[in-house]
Amino acid sequence: MFNNLSVIGVGLMGGSIACKAREQGLAKHIVGVGYPAQALNLQRAESLGVVDQVSYFGGTAEEVLAQSDCVIIAVPVGSIEQIFLELKGVWNPDAVYSDVGSTKGSVIQSARNVFGDVPDNFVPVHPIAGAENSGVDAAQLDLFAGKRVIFTPTENSSANALLQLRIFWEKLGARVSTMAIEHHDAVLAATSHLPHVLAFSLVRLLDKKDSHDEIFKYAAGGFKDFTRIASSDPSMWLDICMNNKDEIIPLIRQINDELEEVAQFLIKGDSESVFKTFSTAKSARQRFLDQCD
Amino acid sequence: MFNNLSVIGVGLMGGSIACKAREQGLAKHIVGVGYPAQALNLQRAESLGVVDQVSYFGGTAEEVLAQSDCVIIAVPVGSIEQIFLELKGVWNPDAVYSDVGSTKGSVIQSARNVFGDVPDNFVPVHPIAGAENSGVDAAQLDLFAGKRVIFTPTENSSANALLQLRIFWEKLGARVSTMAIEHHDAVLAATSHLPHVLAFSLVRLLDKKDSHDEIFKYAAGGFKDFTRIASSDPSMWLDICMNNKDEIIPLIRQINDELEEVAQFLIKGDSESVFKTFSTAKSARQRFLDQCD
Repeated sequence: MFNNLSVIGVGLMGGSIACKAREQGLAKHIVGVGYPAQALNLQRAESLGVVDQVSYFGGTAEEVLAQSDCVIIAVPVGSIEQIFLELKGVWNPDAVYSDVGSTKGSVIQSARNVFGDVPDNFVPVHPIAGAENSGVDAAQLDLFAGKRVIFTPTENSSANALLQLRIFWEKLGARVSTMAIEHHDAVLAATSHLPHVLAFSLVRLLDKKDSHDEIFKYAAGGFKDFTRIASSDPSMWLDICMNNKDEIIPLIRQINDELEEVAQFLIKGDSESVFKTFSTAKSARQRFLDQCD
Repeated sequence: MFNNLSVIGVGLMGGSIACKAREQGLAKHIVGVGYPAQALNLQRAESLGVVDQVSYFGGTAEEVLAQSDCVIIAVPVGSIEQIFLELKGVWNPDAVYSDVGSTKGSVIQSARNVFGDVPDNFVPVHPIAGAENSGVDAAQLDLFAGKRVIFTPTENSSANALLQLRIFWEKLGARVSTMAIEHHDAVLAATSHLPHVLAFSLVRLLDKKDSHDEIFKYAAGGFKDFTRIASSDPSMWLDICMNNKDEIIPLIRQINDELEEVAQFLIKGDSESVFKTFSTAKSARQRFLDQCD
């Protein structure tokens, strides 16, 4: 469907997009784009056959990007404004542009900072898929299979760009939903950003204790699953938390209140309230599982 | 190794013990013991062949227990004192007794309440294995394979009881460690009890929100893993939290401080400190994974 697909950032997300786009025949030619500092990962992407060619900013990237009919920006949200600046001079009004950032308000703001307004052929997109590993070696052909991908179009978004990207993402295997930007950031803060903060904070707390080696020695499967997301890339999560802090900070206070409430129930010996808290949570999670497809 | 093994409570733990004990030929005859109110589960255990026979308190249980040479108490920690009361009149000095409770200080206290002191042929044991499901249908033949089981003997514990139970648990596939009672309760509060409180509290917080259905709709694999333990049995976890609250309450305050610190870093825009928190946690979890066998 595209002649020249450029993927800026060929890590877990960008690599998985490139692999599946090739398998599905969505692009004749796929280029991995990045900075010279990322040469090791980009060369690896080329040697694995994830991309046909690599191209660097300050080298051939500007030329490659000007000729692309689809550009996917798959860098951490904290780097998107820099990428917009790189793209500004070679922005192609006939191409479609998208990103995969985990926060959307900040991406819109970055676009406004660089372009004055969000270009009509740029659609902010967030695939709800990931893993705790990063880099092109973490890429998976079926990372998006059956997963949700959220489009957060702006008032400017062109019908053509929306349609092309919808087809693209559906062919990658994802199920497309549309959401308002602010709503996206609130929902993801609750289901993804807060849990990551909790997992990082718990592991750090236990690591501070004198007996941390022994604590970890006697941790079981439940702890392993619970803390899996604490193995996520710290830079990426720093970016996400900084870019969505207006949603995350109130949630941190809310979970603290919730935890203090449990502490108070325990102090008072209020078994009924503890049981209600736990059983309400179990039922709610069951409803969550029931609606997972 | 035993003629008559009685398992009081044939749920996930008791059922898994009975299944593996049979496979390993650790007992000639295995009886599932409980109250008439648990008849449905016990009959299911018998029909599945997990136990050879079932026996009820107030019926034949007293006679069966008096003739057992090994009794495993596999009930929630909140019910152990009641079981000790049932056992008191038929306590066999030549048998070995053990439990599988997740908190050990409370089990010792219950034994003291009933027997005056902890009987020398009772060894408090905690297998670090579990699942979020409960009941005999959740039993697994290899639940304990390669898992740690912690013995928390008292000063009274007889060498014979310790040896027999060590052989028994090793044949069930577990790796036996020994720990002081208070230390066990502190370590498990950190690795298991606090994470459960966090998971239950997070799911409950999100469930309270107006958009809870949508929040759960857009939750991904990370959320599913993170909240798996919130599907655990609320009664069992009520018991555990009430019985180990002296360890759990301070940990709730510590994780709240940890979370508030992250909130403050975000408010101040202190990227360096957020990064340090997240990367310290990632490194600590990697050390945890490296020591997992």
